[in-house]
Amino acid sequence: MKVVALAGGVGGAKLVDGLAKILPIDDFTVIVNTGDDFDHFGLRICPDIDTVCYTLAGIANQETGWGRADETWQVLGSISQLGGPTWFQLGDQDVGVHLERTRLLSEGISLSEIISRFCKIWGIEIRVIPMSNSPVSTIVHTHEGDLPFQDYFVKRKCKPHVMGFSFKGVEHALPAPGVLETLNAAELIIICPSNPWVSVDPIFSVPGIKDVISDRKQRSVVVAVSPIIKGATIKGPAAKMFSEMGIDPSALSVAEHYRSKYGHEVLTGFVYDSLDAELSKLLDEMGIETLKTNTIMNDTQDRIRLAEKVIRFGNSLLQPKNI
Amino acid sequence: MKVVALAGGVGGAKLVDGLAKILPIDDFTVIVNTGDDFDHFGLRICPDIDTVCYTLAGIANQETGWGRADETWQVLGSISQLGGPTWFQLGDQDVGVHLERTRLLSEGISLSEIISRFCKIWGIEIRVIPMSNSPVSTIVHTHEGDLPFQDYFVKRKCKPHVMGFSFKGVEHALPAPGVLETLNAAELIIICPSNPWVSVDPIFSVPGIKDVISDRKQRSVVVAVSPIIKGATIKGPAAKMFSEMGIDPSALSVAEHYRSKYGHEVLTGFVYDSLDAELSKLLDEMGIETLKTNTIMNDTQDRIRLAEKVIRFGNSLLQPKNI
Repeated sequence: MKVVALAGGVGGAKLVDGLAKILPIDDFTVIVNTGDDFDHFGLRICPDIDTVCYTLAGIANQETGWGRADETWQVLGSISQLGGPTWFQLGDQDVGVHLERTRLLSEGISLSEIISRFCKIWGIEIRVIPMSNSPVSTIVHTHEGDLPFQDYFVKRKCKPHVMGFSFKGVEHALPAPGVLETLNAAELIIICPSNPWVSVDPIFSVPGIKDVISDRKQRSVVVAVSPIIKGATIKGPAAKMFSEMGIDPSALSVAEHYRSKYGHEVLTGFVYDSLDAELSKLLDEMGIETLKTNTIMNDTQDRIRLAEKVIRFGNSLLQPKNI
Repeated sequence: MKVVALAGGVGGAKLVDGLAKILPIDDFTVIVNTGDDFDHFGLRICPDIDTVCYTLAGIANQETGWGRADETWQVLGSISQLGGPTWFQLGDQDVGVHLERTRLLSEGISLSEIISRFCKIWGIEIRVIPMSNSPVSTIVHTHEGDLPFQDYFVKRKCKPHVMGFSFKGVEHALPAPGVLETLNAAELIIICPSNPWVSVDPIFSVPGIKDVISDRKQRSVVVAVSPIIKGATIKGPAAKMFSEMGIDPSALSVAEHYRSKYGHEVLTGFVYDSLDAELSKLLDEMGIETLKTNTIMNDTQDRIRLAEKVIRFGNSLLQPKNI
């Protein structure tokens, strides 16, 4: 079974790691959000891609979920001494990655090619593709004005009240090489437990991606895993965003979000946490196939267990189609 | 007495440090070569300015003469792992300085203003000015073609046979704010024991600098300190360059270099090492005032001692003019 995962940062990276550990290398591709990418100190920084790659390479900081294990902070200390901006955590090893990526980009090498090279060096065998090689910038519309994503997320610690989002440049962005082909060949497309507004929506907004997923609906299934458990998120501002947009932050709202945005038929299956058992009836009423299971991933075993459950669930949804 | 020093890297920085320790803060300015400056990984790197500033701030690596004390190398290790270029030694604290400088330059702040801010933070009280805020790039013409200075100096370890030099962009470069004013007010101008070809010549090549020094000759004296001792240099390729250009590498050649390039009258006094005593007669025949002394600076005491000697010598040359 050919599987494609759509992922953002920490939560998505964990499930991707579980999937990578159980699926045949050639059958699994992850397409990663780049709407969070930004320029800082002239460096091109790709937070979601780095989180996914560091996690897959086993060099991620296990405690924070982002950044590198055994990281040092001499660069940031030096910047701090000079009165420079320190709101974005730049670890030393991380800076090396940003510098080399920036250098390669300036030589005209595409982001997807750079990721492919880095993955090879880091021993990552599955295919990791950015949603696009064109720069796309997630803008958060807030009561305090429009903020570039990292300004909202890191600098302002998600405090400004959210009104909406836009993805600057996305209308002219092309899917990165392999994105459409891989989605077209996929039998199971997994929407990871990532932020629907700022991790998954940017991917669907790249021209061509939503259409290829819709067009595939007779031959593939799309399964989303809720990032919201009991009205909250393990990490990140997704629940807060739902609330501020006037929507009850729940797994149900996540399923409704994808259905209303991408078409009723696009979302075949939905995975939500056992702690949200009271939502079962409402989800059933939506006419969506569901899997209720423990979705919290505290360690590698959890990642593998959830990955196995999602694959088995996806497979069960796929079987009737193949009859 | 108002004193201005013209300096390049390690040797120049040592004498500047000695001078800064004995002269009244307001009476001493150093003008630093920027011909070595270059872009690497998108960072703007200013090796001579950083060497001078780190030395003055007491945070220089005492062993290498360049770079920071207690430096770590995580960034370069990370770049190395990714197969990126590691020929230029980028220490972690150093990278912080390059990042913040690059960020400020991209905000439109001039190099001289940035240096002024950094000096304040580092507790440097004397005035440090780059020769120009406009980018100037020293190009080394070699038997293997033209090489940007750092490619020649660091990447190729000064191996290619030198035929000449040019300073790309210098014809349109403006002296940084304060350069001409400070030189015009100077009574003693000290050419530090820096490389004549690639540290001092670039400074004199900035339009206006040579003229203001020449015009001052009735009211000030110019004293150069030889970087060449017994046909060799303590550090750097100056002697090798003289040889490859068909000139005997000696203190005498250094004095002749400045006289032939900047005008016979410009160089009032010349300081050379006691080890070169056999050159005394030839230097006397040039009609130049000389000071023969120990010019090797192994420690802070040496720097102060040489600085005192040079100041006393310069003062002695200045006195007759004031009569």
